Amino acid sequence: MGTTTILSDLGTEIVIPICAVIGILFSLFQWYLVSQVKLSPEKPAADGKNGFTEALIEEEEGVNDHTVVHRCAEIQNAISEGATSFLFTEYQYVGVFMVIFAILIFVFLGSVEGFSTSSKVCTYDTTKMCKPALMTAVFSTVSFLLGAITSVVSGFLGMKIATYANARTTLEARKGVSKAFIVAFRSGAVMGFLLAANGLLVLYITINLFKVYYGDDWEGLFESITGYGLGGSSMALFGRVGGGIYTKAADVGADLVGKVERNIPEDDPRNPAVIADNVGDNVGDIAGMGSDLFGSYAESSCAALVVASISSFGNTHDFTSMMYPLIVSSVGILVCLITTLFATDFFEVKNVKQIEPSLKNQLIISTVLMTIGIAIVSWIALPSSFTIFNFGAQKVVKNWQLFLCVGVGLWAGLIIGFVTEYYTSNAYSPVQDVADSCRTGAATNVIFGLALGYKSVIIPIFAIAISIFVSFSFAAMYGVAVAALGMLSTIATGLAIDAYGPISDNAGGIAEMAGMSHRIRERTDALDAAGNTTAAIGKGFAIGSAALVSLALFGAFVSRAEITTVDVLTPKVFIGLIVGAMLPYWFSAMTMKSVGKAALKMVEEVRRQFNTIPGLMEGTAKPDYATCVKISTDASIKEMIPPGALVMLTPLIVGIFFGVETLSGVLAGSLVSGVQIAISASNTGGAWDNAKKYIEAGVSEHAKSLGPKGSDPHKAAVIGDTVGDPLKDTSGPSLNILIKLMAVESLVFAPFFATHGGLLFKFF
Amino acid sequence: MGTTTILSDLGTEIVIPICAVIGILFSLFQWYLVSQVKLSPEKPAADGKNGFTEALIEEEEGVNDHTVVHRCAEIQNAISEGATSFLFTEYQYVGVFMVIFAILIFVFLGSVEGFSTSSKVCTYDTTKMCKPALMTAVFSTVSFLLGAITSVVSGFLGMKIATYANARTTLEARKGVSKAFIVAFRSGAVMGFLLAANGLLVLYITINLFKVYYGDDWEGLFESITGYGLGGSSMALFGRVGGGIYTKAADVGADLVGKVERNIPEDDPRNPAVIADNVGDNVGDIAGMGSDLFGSYAESSCAALVVASISSFGNTHDFTSMMYPLIVSSVGILVCLITTLFATDFFEVKNVKQIEPSLKNQLIISTVLMTIGIAIVSWIALPSSFTIFNFGAQKVVKNWQLFLCVGVGLWAGLIIGFVTEYYTSNAYSPVQDVADSCRTGAATNVIFGLALGYKSVIIPIFAIAISIFVSFSFAAMYGVAVAALGMLSTIATGLAIDAYGPISDNAGGIAEMAGMSHRIRERTDALDAAGNTTAAIGKGFAIGSAALVSLALFGAFVSRAEITTVDVLTPKVFIGLIVGAMLPYWFSAMTMKSVGKAALKMVEEVRRQFNTIPGLMEGTAKPDYATCVKISTDASIKEMIPPGALVMLTPLIVGIFFGVETLSGVLAGSLVSGVQIAISASNTGGAWDNAKKYIEAGVSEHAKSLGPKGSDPHKAAVIGDTVGDPLKDTSGPSLNILIKLMAVESLVFAPFFATHGGLLFKFF
Repeated sequence: MGTTTILSDLGTEIVIPICAVIGILFSLFQWYLVSQVKLSPEKPAADGKNGFTEALIEEEEGVNDHTVVHRCAEIQNAISEGATSFLFTEYQYVGVFMVIFAILIFVFLGSVEGFSTSSKVCTYDTTKMCKPALMTAVFSTVSFLLGAITSVVSGFLGMKIATYANARTTLEARKGVSKAFIVAFRSGAVMGFLLAANGLLVLYITINLFKVYYGDDWEGLFESITGYGLGGSSMALFGRVGGGIYTKAADVGADLVGKVERNIPEDDPRNPAVIADNVGDNVGDIAGMGSDLFGSYAESSCAALVVASISSFGNTHDFTSMMYPLIVSSVGILVCLITTLFATDFFEVKNVKQIEPSLKNQLIISTVLMTIGIAIVSWIALPSSFTIFNFGAQKVVKNWQLFLCVGVGLWAGLIIGFVTEYYTSNAYSPVQDVADSCRTGAATNVIFGLALGYKSVIIPIFAIAISIFVSFSFAAMYGVAVAALGMLSTIATGLAIDAYGPISDNAGGIAEMAGMSHRIRERTDALDAAGNTTAAIGKGFAIGSAALVSLALFGAFVSRAEITTVDVLTPKVFIGLIVGAMLPYWFSAMTMKSVGKAALKMVEEVRRQFNTIPGLMEGTAKPDYATCVKISTDASIKEMIPPGALVMLTPLIVGIFFGVETLSGVLAGSLVSGVQIAISASNTGGAWDNAKKYIEAGVSEHAKSLGPKGSDPHKAAVIGDTVGDPLKDTSGPSLNILIKLMAVESLVFAPFFATHGGLLFKFF
Repeated sequence: MGTTTILSDLGTEIVIPICAVIGILFSLFQWYLVSQVKLSPEKPAADGKNGFTEALIEEEEGVNDHTVVHRCAEIQNAISEGATSFLFTEYQYVGVFMVIFAILIFVFLGSVEGFSTSSKVCTYDTTKMCKPALMTAVFSTVSFLLGAITSVVSGFLGMKIATYANARTTLEARKGVSKAFIVAFRSGAVMGFLLAANGLLVLYITINLFKVYYGDDWEGLFESITGYGLGGSSMALFGRVGGGIYTKAADVGADLVGKVERNIPEDDPRNPAVIADNVGDNVGDIAGMGSDLFGSYAESSCAALVVASISSFGNTHDFTSMMYPLIVSSVGILVCLITTLFATDFFEVKNVKQIEPSLKNQLIISTVLMTIGIAIVSWIALPSSFTIFNFGAQKVVKNWQLFLCVGVGLWAGLIIGFVTEYYTSNAYSPVQDVADSCRTGAATNVIFGLALGYKSVIIPIFAIAISIFVSFSFAAMYGVAVAALGMLSTIATGLAIDAYGPISDNAGGIAEMAGMSHRIRERTDALDAAGNTTAAIGKGFAIGSAALVSLALFGAFVSRAEITTVDVLTPKVFIGLIVGAMLPYWFSAMTMKSVGKAALKMVEEVRRQFNTIPGLMEGTAKPDYATCVKISTDASIKEMIPPGALVMLTPLIVGIFFGVETLSGVLAGSLVSGVQIAISASNTGGAWDNAKKYIEAGVSEHAKSLGPKGSDPHKAAVIGDTVGDPLKDTSGPSLNILIKLMAVESLVFAPFFATHGGLLFKFF
């Protein structure tokens, strides 16, 4: 059995931080480029033009440029302030929760050995001594807090970048689609690289610091590190749910009164909820998505590490092999960097039709390059052959098999991305069929949309099933964990094209609010339509990786809880399975109802303003944006608690009262059921949104026959779009956090449940 | 260990057929009572009234009674003819399928021992000789055909009764709500008792005939009997899917043009799709539901029998204990008979408000009485203690434990019924909230309705989980099977109140089409509103029992396939689990899209008739009903094939190529995922329907503020109702057949899969 790696331990210690730093520097450079678009009117240049070489639309049409720029800056400011204030409020509440939960982790894990400070015999290698359970409790608590803080920082930075970029995208749209695309895309890249590199760096530093205490006890070291994943995911839960409720309450509320009752366009500055709506895109889609994908990344790394810590190279303390998951992520950053250049420098988007292909190429290029990257990493950073712990047995794995595990995850991600694009882009027949069904009204639109979402589940599930089969067969749970990492290895690119969507959406909103020419709006709408699709693709990645991550965490939990089989045909497991499969429905019911309730409050406020503020409809009086922002903030903070509690408490209650077997059932059930609802909800929503945009844009004969805006089919399409809002932006994407978080929480608390859990069965 | 039963074998041989015959006689008596309502105008009696003691509304209002009766008879005829012709067309296609599938069963099962005609050593008692596998193939095929035929007869008779009763209900409505209720309810009882007794009798006779050949080889005998369940369920699949598409294509198509475009009332005779719509209620809700519940009943009996055949009393050939499942069903018929009298004779429904409580009391009374019945049966028909085969081990069971198993299933059914009522009746806040959300339009209505459906899953799943835990813990898979039987033991009452719904719905349609007074329509609407709720309750029972049945069948399959654990944490099982959980989505996508497509065709035809037939809108010309009936028939026949193939082929493909472990995963996955979608879909649909009815009826201040018909909230409610149609009547209820059928099919083919299956893994 080959036990040495080509890459030395020192090399590993250098490669990982360097790649992370490169990612951060690249991100800052992109930020610098974005900042070159000035938000203050520039002095006229010598050639008499206003500082740009291209003619601006406003000039052509004779609109005063200075006021427009001022207005854009003002609106951007309002959005940024609203978002910052919401996130700070959210963090205050979540902070309290974090402290309580940190105490819980410490107390529960500390109690496993009765808070004893003496060393114990290791679980897997009984010839050695490991650090006391009390210290694992301490370090788990610390890594939990570190994960939570990193997640908060990730979400917050993402929001800051997005609100920095949106008005700039609007202003660049005056020069053409190409320029606007570049700004939006670069801003997305800032977020993608910053998050990926930051997550990697913090994890790397944490491992190295923890190693100072743990020394050769890698079992304890990497068990403690799992807290990092739990912290990241708990924050992501609140970010997704709170942000999701915020954004959709505002969006639905604004649309219902503005578009439907008052017949004013989307993002019209007369609509009091319009600022809240735009704030929502940033706190929900950007900050929420950032936290979510960071959570997936942290969890899959932790799952891989904790499983690897009891492998042959874990036992022999081969640092390079152990760091394989982090090296894969490091190379991922470099690959994504090159990929980004293809969109920003090597090729240029010249017209609207090139936007979607350009974004799609990002996925293809990054996947192809990353395949090579993984091959290299698997060759130099792994022994040619090693053993992996597989539920009580040892399994021999070759390095090329592990390459296949990571690769199958990576390519499954690409397939999921393509399928998502096919079902949510209005360039293909599924969305066009949905649009066509609007002819017979909103009811058929809803029926066709739901059917589309259900259908879109098929291929992604097969892709996930094949990845699981391959990676599981080759390398048990370690294989599944690295397959998840493979899917997430191009996370920087994934996040870039995902964040691009809400930035474009906001840019369109700002154009409308600033009263810019309808030609600007058309350009931002084109960017946004592609953005809806990439947002759906991003969600597809998030869900696919969540499925793999959850399974890996679930496997790690089972190992750590010291059970060897999860037999469906035992009553304890089966009831867990069926109740677990129910949880995503319970959770979705809560989040959808929350959006509905919050939206109704928003509707009342918007109506009140229209009815009581004289001159609002005429545009002579300004609406009270702040009250609407406050309603969304209050509602989302209040409404995020019940679903949050459901997810956080379920593993604790099941583990304590029913024990680890039932908890295993719950995890498996919620995983296999949740992934389906999540995919179908986000694709249904994406399809409805783009069916509406398809009718509005009217680029084909077919689309023209359904339009224009305000026609009956268009009204039906708007209803579908509104129904889809909470599905695609609140309940759907929150579900992948549900399945991940319950799994990672179970993993962290596994020793406690194994020791003190199952009270109900102990007494009866 | 007590091995004798109080009830002698001879007693058993007498009790079962007698109860079945009593059921049939009672059913015929009810039919006779219904037939007393004449569909031809009677001669005026001596008192100058027209043969009735009560004054008729028509007389009061001076409408000519004779023409109304004639018209009603005519319409009923048209509906009955349409339904008969559809069912015959359906049976032709399904007949071909049945023959092919029968050959498949024979060939696959015969090939297990290479078509050898020599006896073999029994699987579970290796000291004995069992009949050759070839004969099991023959008898399985025969029992498959018997099950299919019984199912066809059940559905057909149900439809005949319903179309016999609908116009009679309309006519009785002239005398008052009370009279109409009795007719509709009695007709439902005809169907309920006929199906329950018929199913029991055929099964009983089949067992006795098969015993002539099998003699003491009970293992082979009851393995062959499982074919009966498969036959029943395959027919049910096509009945549900075909009927479901038929009814909703017609309903949605009629509503979209009639109500939405032309603004004419529901069931207006000017609407060309109106006859097709009413036919649909009979072929979908009545014939489909009849086949479905008969299938559940047949399958749970078969599952219990096949598991019991290898129990201690199976080995000692204790006939009475063996027939315990059938004795429970026999007593169920008597209990339901008494229960029916509470609604028809002991108490009288005097006004609209008493309808729902009266139907609800049926559930409570039958459950309470049945609990006593089960206690008696468990006491006299079981040994005080016996052993059950539990995946390789023997488990000792006391008779009182088995009583608890049946009882927990029975009471879980009641809880599911109550929860369903709570979430779908417009007497409670959930539906009123949904109605209220119509204020802000169709989008919020759809969001709130979906959330309601998701939420309504929670308690039923806990009820099912508890039943499974109790019955599984006490008596392994035998316990689960008898729990399912417990839930279905009051099937006669369940079917009666379920069939009552579509009959009332049709009665309202006939009143409208016959141009009767709006007061008649109000009365039938009141009956129908209660019917929507009982239909949802019926679906709740069907789904709950399907979950238990599937698990029992799944357990029997695992035993028969000779695997002892289904470990989630093996790649083969896990991929089965996640793909299985996806199947209900795939299936729903197909059925919903089918309804959508068929409805669009119907819309075109209805529009064409309105546009081309002069005088149609004015009521001077008659529409071409037959073409609409034909469109629905053709579309449903064509569209039922792909979803049918998906369900029928999946177990075969998975079993042959991936083997029994993966198939186990698929069964478990589709079970835990499908049951959730089925419950939420049928409750969402029921809630939307009743939210619309709530606004239309306008009985409370709140309801009045949302109405009247034609108001904006009402229009929004109609959209929700239309979306709900395929959910509650096509995709939702078909799903419980999906989970049952895949399980029973796997069970029947288990020996084949165990011998020849898993090709893919054998080669790689």
